[in-house]
Amino acid sequence: MEHILVELMSQLTQLSEEEKTAITESFPIKTFEKGSYLMKQGKLAKNAYYVIEGCIREFELIGGEEKTTGFFIENESAANFNSLANQIPSNRSFVCEEKTTVAILSAEKEQQLYDKYPRFETFCRSGMEQMLGNEKEQLAELITLKPEQRYLKLLQEKPDLLNRIPQYHVASFLGIKPETLSRIRKRIVLKKE
Amino acid sequence: MEHILVELMSQLTQLSEEEKTAITESFPIKTFEKGSYLMKQGKLAKNAYYVIEGCIREFELIGGEEKTTGFFIENESAANFNSLANQIPSNRSFVCEEKTTVAILSAEKEQQLYDKYPRFETFCRSGMEQMLGNEKEQLAELITLKPEQRYLKLLQEKPDLLNRIPQYHVASFLGIKPETLSRIRKRIVLKKE
Repeated sequence: MEHILVELMSQLTQLSEEEKTAITESFPIKTFEKGSYLMKQGKLAKNAYYVIEGCIREFELIGGEEKTTGFFIENESAANFNSLANQIPSNRSFVCEEKTTVAILSAEKEQQLYDKYPRFETFCRSGMEQMLGNEKEQLAELITLKPEQRYLKLLQEKPDLLNRIPQYHVASFLGIKPETLSRIRKRIVLKKE
Repeated sequence: MEHILVELMSQLTQLSEEEKTAITESFPIKTFEKGSYLMKQGKLAKNAYYVIEGCIREFELIGGEEKTTGFFIENESAANFNSLANQIPSNRSFVCEEKTTVAILSAEKEQQLYDKYPRFETFCRSGMEQMLGNEKEQLAELITLKPEQRYLKLLQEKPDLLNRIPQYHVASFLGIKPETLSRIRKRIVLKKE
């Protein structure tokens, strides 16, 4: 089977065999058990993770409490660019909420491939534009939408997330108490009936 | 005087005269009066804007109310990547809150320069990593910090913003009522005394 990044890049441009081999060898695909940490708060980030199967949860530990700041499922990338680009410790962690298979993109290998294959840099730059678009939409939604509306959007975008993640993490991500999320869910079910 | 992007890129790499000319000619620098719109909700985004002097406010019009989703001051870029990358109408507007001077980066010209000068693509890719880092930090803060803490961070990052922007826009950005922001400001002044 072809490497996921080779597959994605091949949809946009025709890769040489040399490029395919370089990508495949540079970015290993690994499976992590549920509960594994891909990055720990306080450490320097070295990699980005492209999720092939599974779910990564991002959180910040504040006063002993885990505040969930993101979920990354299939075809999404988890990365702390602030730590990667500025070489400062990450203030958040990545933990696998399920058995999770990812392509590991080390920043060092990425740089090597940028230098050697400009098309790979084009591919990544274009992917970053998409990510910037997504992040800004999420940021705007946090300001403009109420928790109930944000929950409905989350259901739309990641319909099975609540079957995969404990409800209190989803509540944390929405900035509400688990009881409030329960009430919102009941209200939505009642509306549907 | 050198073009701002030539100046910034020259700090990282040595540019040829040809590259300098291409950048200078591709990205015109313009000054807009206070109240000018650089992008309107519902339209396709075509440009990004690098602020040389002044302040751009980003907002979404919802039910007749302007919800402020961002401020961009000197050395920051305002862009709607969701609209630029996916060719869909922007759901937010950019308005100048002061007389504002920007470098206008049209997506079309950027593409031309990427094709011709790979170093320019490297420069932009690297800038996007920084932007991704910033956006994610902001996103996480919206989840993990209370409005008062977010206000203090905003004061730290953009100390003179409240002298430049009406207070109700700042309150909108913080997701609180102007009266609440007034109370927070009074409390901070009292603590200092």
